[in-house]
Amino acid sequence: MERVFELAATIGSLDIPAMEQASARQQQLTKPAGSLGRLEEVAIQMAGITRQSMPTIKRKAVIVMAADHGVTAEGVSAYPSAVTPQMVLNFLHGGAAINALARQAEAEVVIVDVGVASEIKHPQLLERKIAYGTANMADGPAMTREQALAAISAGIDVCESLLKSGVDLVATGDMGIGNTTAASAITACLTQTSVAAVTGRGTGIDEEQLAHKIQIIERALQINQPDPSDPLDVLAKVGGLEIAGLVGVIVSCAAARVPVVIDGFIAGAATLVAVGICPAIRNYLFAGHISVEGGHGLILKQIGLIPLLDLHLRLGEGTGAVLAMHIIEAAVKTHSEMATFTEAGVSSREHPTELKDS
Amino acid sequence: MERVFELAATIGSLDIPAMEQASARQQQLTKPAGSLGRLEEVAIQMAGITRQSMPTIKRKAVIVMAADHGVTAEGVSAYPSAVTPQMVLNFLHGGAAINALARQAEAEVVIVDVGVASEIKHPQLLERKIAYGTANMADGPAMTREQALAAISAGIDVCESLLKSGVDLVATGDMGIGNTTAASAITACLTQTSVAAVTGRGTGIDEEQLAHKIQIIERALQINQPDPSDPLDVLAKVGGLEIAGLVGVIVSCAAARVPVVIDGFIAGAATLVAVGICPAIRNYLFAGHISVEGGHGLILKQIGLIPLLDLHLRLGEGTGAVLAMHIIEAAVKTHSEMATFTEAGVSSREHPTELKDS
Repeated sequence: MERVFELAATIGSLDIPAMEQASARQQQLTKPAGSLGRLEEVAIQMAGITRQSMPTIKRKAVIVMAADHGVTAEGVSAYPSAVTPQMVLNFLHGGAAINALARQAEAEVVIVDVGVASEIKHPQLLERKIAYGTANMADGPAMTREQALAAISAGIDVCESLLKSGVDLVATGDMGIGNTTAASAITACLTQTSVAAVTGRGTGIDEEQLAHKIQIIERALQINQPDPSDPLDVLAKVGGLEIAGLVGVIVSCAAARVPVVIDGFIAGAATLVAVGICPAIRNYLFAGHISVEGGHGLILKQIGLIPLLDLHLRLGEGTGAVLAMHIIEAAVKTHSEMATFTEAGVSSREHPTELKDS
Repeated sequence: MERVFELAATIGSLDIPAMEQASARQQQLTKPAGSLGRLEEVAIQMAGITRQSMPTIKRKAVIVMAADHGVTAEGVSAYPSAVTPQMVLNFLHGGAAINALARQAEAEVVIVDVGVASEIKHPQLLERKIAYGTANMADGPAMTREQALAAISAGIDVCESLLKSGVDLVATGDMGIGNTTAASAITACLTQTSVAAVTGRGTGIDEEQLAHKIQIIERALQINQPDPSDPLDVLAKVGGLEIAGLVGVIVSCAAARVPVVIDGFIAGAATLVAVGICPAIRNYLFAGHISVEGGHGLILKQIGLIPLLDLHLRLGEGTGAVLAMHIIEAAVKTHSEMATFTEAGVSSREHPTELKDS
């Protein structure tokens, strides 16, 4: 059996006793029950993921998978493919949005070349290049099944080594000119929705270019006939190397019971594939935000995730996921640091307490 | 002229040249234009508020105004008034949600007794008690106009002294059993909406208690006949001392060109009063989040604010505002720390650049 399926087979369910303990604690904290809303839900889910009734977050990382897309030859993006390696260098030099946001959130930025179409050398770059970009999916499969599996494996390797070093909260990041085209193709196929309904303007194309992008995706689906009952087939034929790398990241986090914060549309497409391989993965995910790209809402709905943020982002790189780490940490910190009614001498509804300290 | 009106008269408009410079910079940063969504808007508004094209945040604080409400005698809350001083002590001992969230956001927590109904002594408590709680608004005015002005003045004093110490981002916090009743009364009056439409369950009352709470508020408005064209009259007759204190905080921040992050429904009622006194205040505000309390959405709509977060919070204390500080800091940090296309050697749409570094 391929490695990803082996790993997926080990993914268990959430730890119900830990969640029940966390939920009981939430009822005892000095606040009206339920008044911390989604922070309470996140804390309880974190307990279920980590098997700890008082979960902690010690070390955060965002894994940015970078790769190129042969389909850019069709003119589907507002930017040339040359921007992929340029942005990778920008990440490595600390000048991109994800760098600023990761510094703020104290998350490590890990950049992986899983398929950039040119050579990039940098001491901090993880080189796991499977191919020099995908093939043009408008002419045939973007990847062979073997390439897709190799890119997933690269994601698993990178992630497992990070988790081994103590990372306990992971965000997904991506860079690849043309990757909203691949994400739209995957989403249309795996949600059985029309291409037009899941295709957006990516980095900022106009109305005419959008119509063209939709046509290209329709052609890619027509030519390749990806099988919606086989998520790996869909990933290989109309996906991308960085999307495959993120599938590996997601699967290995879930297998290690480490929560993973999903970024936007590209990460969402990877999540559709990962959850298609193993539905239990869903429990290990937080949706960082909802992207402006129309297909993203549909993905979240299909998987059953409610985004933590809605800030009209459409940048990728892991920006929305890293921003959401603040919310997840807030959930964990309120859960563990707040006093209980008894500890603080505060009257709960059930047990009015006299003022102890004045 | 009363101090609050004098101060309000000094509030100017946003600095357009600084905003234009900030906006031009956003176009140059290494990302598709507009792709950071609301972070870009926040950065530009911050520039307009602070008159700096590259605004910074150096020191944050949340000011929690605490006071009691005579109307609790009518049984409008799920918790007894004794919880107000108990929670104030919990704040001072660091055990409440706001403490955990402020530690995470590195914001100072400033607790002000502007009208708690019992004596509280603590070295870190700012004692600015105007009265031992308000009078029962169901029988007559909650405060005299003089008391409301004195509580506003207390808010101005506390805030001005904090700003003098270098605080450059302020969040509003509140504690006061019964204060959703006051906030609903203010909101119904100042938005000219039915009491039922703006009244929620507060700390968690049931259907029957909610009907009773609505009746009490209707009676308070009937008996006191607050004048919607005079926000101070509304504040005095059906408001609260902590709400008045927050009016002072908001006015003094705007006068000092310091951004202020508004928390939920209680802070929203204070904002309605402040913006009623001086509409230009609106430009200095960020809505931290949208609360579960139904009246809050109406307030935000009337003032024209779009909340940064929607996490189903209904706790108050400043929790949603302090959480939103992460988003505001993210906006400022991406704005100032990201490389431009030229700096990073990345192709912009208009100026394709050759890859410089490989």
